[in-house]
Amino acid sequence: MTPLLRVQNFTVSRDGFGAGENQSLERPFGHADPGTMFTWAGATAGWPNRTDPGGSRGLDDYFTRDFGNNIGAEIMGRNKFSPQRGPWKDHDWLGWWGDEPPFHTPVFVLTHHPRPSFTLSDTTFHFVDADPATALAQAREAAGGKDVRLGGGATTIREFLDADLVDTLHVAVCPHVELGSGVRLWKSPDELLDRFHLEVVPSFSGVVHHLFWRR
Amino acid sequence: MTPLLRVQNFTVSRDGFGAGENQSLERPFGHADPGTMFTWAGATAGWPNRTDPGGSRGLDDYFTRDFGNNIGAEIMGRNKFSPQRGPWKDHDWLGWWGDEPPFHTPVFVLTHHPRPSFTLSDTTFHFVDADPATALAQAREAAGGKDVRLGGGATTIREFLDADLVDTLHVAVCPHVELGSGVRLWKSPDELLDRFHLEVVPSFSGVVHHLFWRR
Repeated sequence: MTPLLRVQNFTVSRDGFGAGENQSLERPFGHADPGTMFTWAGATAGWPNRTDPGGSRGLDDYFTRDFGNNIGAEIMGRNKFSPQRGPWKDHDWLGWWGDEPPFHTPVFVLTHHPRPSFTLSDTTFHFVDADPATALAQAREAAGGKDVRLGGGATTIREFLDADLVDTLHVAVCPHVELGSGVRLWKSPDELLDRFHLEVVPSFSGVVHHLFWRR
Repeated sequence: MTPLLRVQNFTVSRDGFGAGENQSLERPFGHADPGTMFTWAGATAGWPNRTDPGGSRGLDDYFTRDFGNNIGAEIMGRNKFSPQRGPWKDHDWLGWWGDEPPFHTPVFVLTHHPRPSFTLSDTTFHFVDADPATALAQAREAAGGKDVRLGGGATTIREFLDADLVDTLHVAVCPHVELGSGVRLWKSPDELLDRFHLEVVPSFSGVVHHLFWRR
C-alpha cells in the first residue's frame, strides 16, 4: 500500500478555527478553551495523552486509538511546537509534552528558524525550513514505509492542502464552540469536496466527525 | 493498560445470526451469502484480505483497519477454521486463508480434537481443547502484553460472553439480511446491556455498527 499523509483528530470550532487568537505559553490555543474543544478526545480510552486507566471505547475511541496506527513520522507547524515566534532565544524549550511526548516517532517541525534535533524518550524532533513537498519527502524517508501524520495546526494543514499533498483528513467539529477569529482551517468543509470524498458522522459526545479521503 | 479481549468486525444478519445453516467447504457461511454480509468490509481500504489498492477510507474503514491494531493473538472456534466436524481425517486442511493468512499472530483454534501446530507465513495455528478461561490465558501469554482478538464464530463468542471474558465487541448488523436460522449471536443486542455500554452507529454502507464496552 502506498504510504499516506493523514490528518487525524484535528478539532475545530463550528466556524472552522483550529485555535483562537493570541497563543501564549499559558494559552496554547489562544482564546479557545482546549478543555472544551478536546473533551471528546480526552474522554476516550485511546487518547494518546491518557495516563490513568478507564475511558470510553465507543465511536470516538476508534479515532483516538488510530492516532499511532501505521504512523511512522509526524509533521507539525512551529506554532504547534512552541508559543515563541521569530529566532529562538535559546534552545531550552522542548515542546508542550514533557519527557514522554505522545508521538513515539520522528517529528518534523516546520520553521524558518532551524535548530539542532533533540530526542525525548522515543520521539526525536527535527527542525526543517522547507516547502511542504520537501518536508514530506524527509518525513516519508524517516517513516520507513509507514504513513505520515500531519499534526497541524490549521495553517500547516492549509499549506499541505494547497500543495495537494494530503490523502486523508479526520476533522472533529465542535458544534457548540464558536471562536469568531483565530487560526482558520476552513469556512466550510464543502471547500474540499472537489478533491475529497466526505462522510459526516455525528458522535455521542456532541462532536461531528468529518472523514475525507481523496477522490 | 490492561490487555483486552476484543471482538472486531463481527457481522450478523438483522435477526442476529453470524452464519447460516449447513456450513460446507463450498459454503463457509452455510446458507448465508458472505458476499452480501461482508460487502461493507470488503469495500474498505483497510480490509485485511484486500490484495488490490483502493477502497474507501470513511467510517467503515476505521473498523477494518483496527483489525490488527495492538492485537497479539486470536482465538477462534473450530468452525471458523474448518468445515470438518469430529476427528480430523488428516491434517491437510490448513484453513480458508491460503499461504498468507490475515492474522499475523498466533491463532488458537478451540477444538475437542487437537492436532499439531503449524505455521503459514507469520501466522501460527495452535489447537487447544480447553475451556474459555484457559484458552484465553494461553492466548494472553502468546500476545506479549497486547490485546487478544476473539475471532468468532457466534457460538465461540457466546461461550466467552457467558464466561464474562469479553471486554469490547464491535458487531456490524446488516439490516437487509434475514437468515431465519443458523448460528446465533443474539436475539437482540439489548441482551448485553446489563454488562456493556452500547453505541449504535449507522454507516453509509448500510450496516449498523454496534460498539460495546464493559460498564
